[in-house]
Amino acid sequence: MTAIRLDGKVVSAAVAERLRERVATLPFAPKLVFVRVGEDPASAYYVRSKERMAKRVGVVSETHVLPDTASQAEVEAVVRGLNDDDEVDGILVQLPLPEGLDPQPVLDLIDPDKDVDGLHPVNVGRLWTGRPALAPATPRGLLALLDHYGVEIEGRHVVIVGRSNLVGRPAAALFQHRNATVTMAHSRTRDLAAVTRQGDIVVAAAGRARVITADMVAPGAAVLDVGMTREADGIAGDVDPAVGEVAGYLTPMPGGTGLMTVAMVIDTTVEAAVRRRARR
Amino acid sequence: MTAIRLDGKVVSAAVAERLRERVATLPFAPKLVFVRVGEDPASAYYVRSKERMAKRVGVVSETHVLPDTASQAEVEAVVRGLNDDDEVDGILVQLPLPEGLDPQPVLDLIDPDKDVDGLHPVNVGRLWTGRPALAPATPRGLLALLDHYGVEIEGRHVVIVGRSNLVGRPAAALFQHRNATVTMAHSRTRDLAAVTRQGDIVVAAAGRARVITADMVAPGAAVLDVGMTREADGIAGDVDPAVGEVAGYLTPMPGGTGLMTVAMVIDTTVEAAVRRRARR
Repeated sequence: MTAIRLDGKVVSAAVAERLRERVATLPFAPKLVFVRVGEDPASAYYVRSKERMAKRVGVVSETHVLPDTASQAEVEAVVRGLNDDDEVDGILVQLPLPEGLDPQPVLDLIDPDKDVDGLHPVNVGRLWTGRPALAPATPRGLLALLDHYGVEIEGRHVVIVGRSNLVGRPAAALFQHRNATVTMAHSRTRDLAAVTRQGDIVVAAAGRARVITADMVAPGAAVLDVGMTREADGIAGDVDPAVGEVAGYLTPMPGGTGLMTVAMVIDTTVEAAVRRRARR
Repeated sequence: MTAIRLDGKVVSAAVAERLRERVATLPFAPKLVFVRVGEDPASAYYVRSKERMAKRVGVVSETHVLPDTASQAEVEAVVRGLNDDDEVDGILVQLPLPEGLDPQPVLDLIDPDKDVDGLHPVNVGRLWTGRPALAPATPRGLLALLDHYGVEIEGRHVVIVGRSNLVGRPAAALFQHRNATVTMAHSRTRDLAAVTRQGDIVVAAAGRARVITADMVAPGAAVLDVGMTREADGIAGDVDPAVGEVAGYLTPMPGGTGLMTVAMVIDTTVEAAVRRRARR
């Protein structure tokens, strides 16, 4: 491919190094607690990746594993306990929960100041109104990638495909705060190709394999692939590899945005810890 | 002008009539309380308009007027009292507050379930995550105008100019929930004309007189003017009157979106009352 690679491995390592230095100067070790229910292998893998990143930078982490027979009340009791524990800076309930458990009441229960996934309505509201907020890690990682490679955001047109609460919508808020013009496209967008071709920056977060093809991207655009669709022969992104011949910048898959999510959730934890401990 | 007039007088009257019929079937009269501080003539005028609309549909309203010497604590004490009063369904603190008072802590204090202006972070967060929320009246009025005149929203491209918490941002959320593709433009957008010309629907909410000119609008587009700039010879909208020769639909100014705001804040009050009283 001719596009410059927006390398998640390089940038997440840079974030980790910066975090390690910052944590070393703090008078306390930030503490992040994972809550995992059942034995979903993907969830276990994600939690392990984040635990490793936490350890690497000096963030203390702990994982509560509940059996997949745990009741709604049992999961909620764990979260309540972590809210009340003054030594805990961040709480991360790994989704999805096993069938029969409703994730929303669990997420709503998390103290917004410890909500390092940024999914609590109070954080979403703070984010959109431009107030200090804990924001989801994946969209934060997109901006960190672009900033690392010097891709200008201010005044550029960012087209986001996908409107999830975890990626598309918070990405729109974050890019808008950086003075980008933001278009939010999705599965019901008419003539998606005409819309994505407007983008100086294109965020592919639709969760549909190879939905962004080379003809849909303006020459030189920066393309960020957040998709991950499991297929018979591996994992496919939302971006067709041929986009690499048209785009100016492209995240590899794997090795792109996923690694950034891991780094940024630890970054958010450190931020949450510093703010919360300054206030108490 | 050749554009069809999106007439706020007609549509707000239709909303009022629908509300009057609905309120008549309720086993209680919804109650809305205004808090006004000082004697800003515009604020007094807006509150009177909303009081009149409330009366017209059978919503009980009351206005607390505090002197412009009121302290922050005094204003906040009024809001706390209204939160605690179970007969109060809606609380509306009319902005701006006199200099020296900080509006944000006052707005944050309002019980989210009585927050009929939809400015509390919890309502903003609920709105953006697609959950039941009280949303600001002005953007709700835009959708009501379009719906009344049968202007399709689903799948259309909506370009919003202006990113205020009261209009631009919540409008983006509301249009997205109706499956529109939404572009959020603002003062830092490059080549604004090229962006607005993409819009099947254009929302002008920048607060700059006549910033949307005829060359910036696609033939046949629906243009909604939310701007209000005070000038020597009256009040100017964000839309140049010549847009009426190009657009397919246009709100008059005055007589357009402003009247809808008045109707929709009462509509939100009735909605808030029904939800809150169903829960208690």
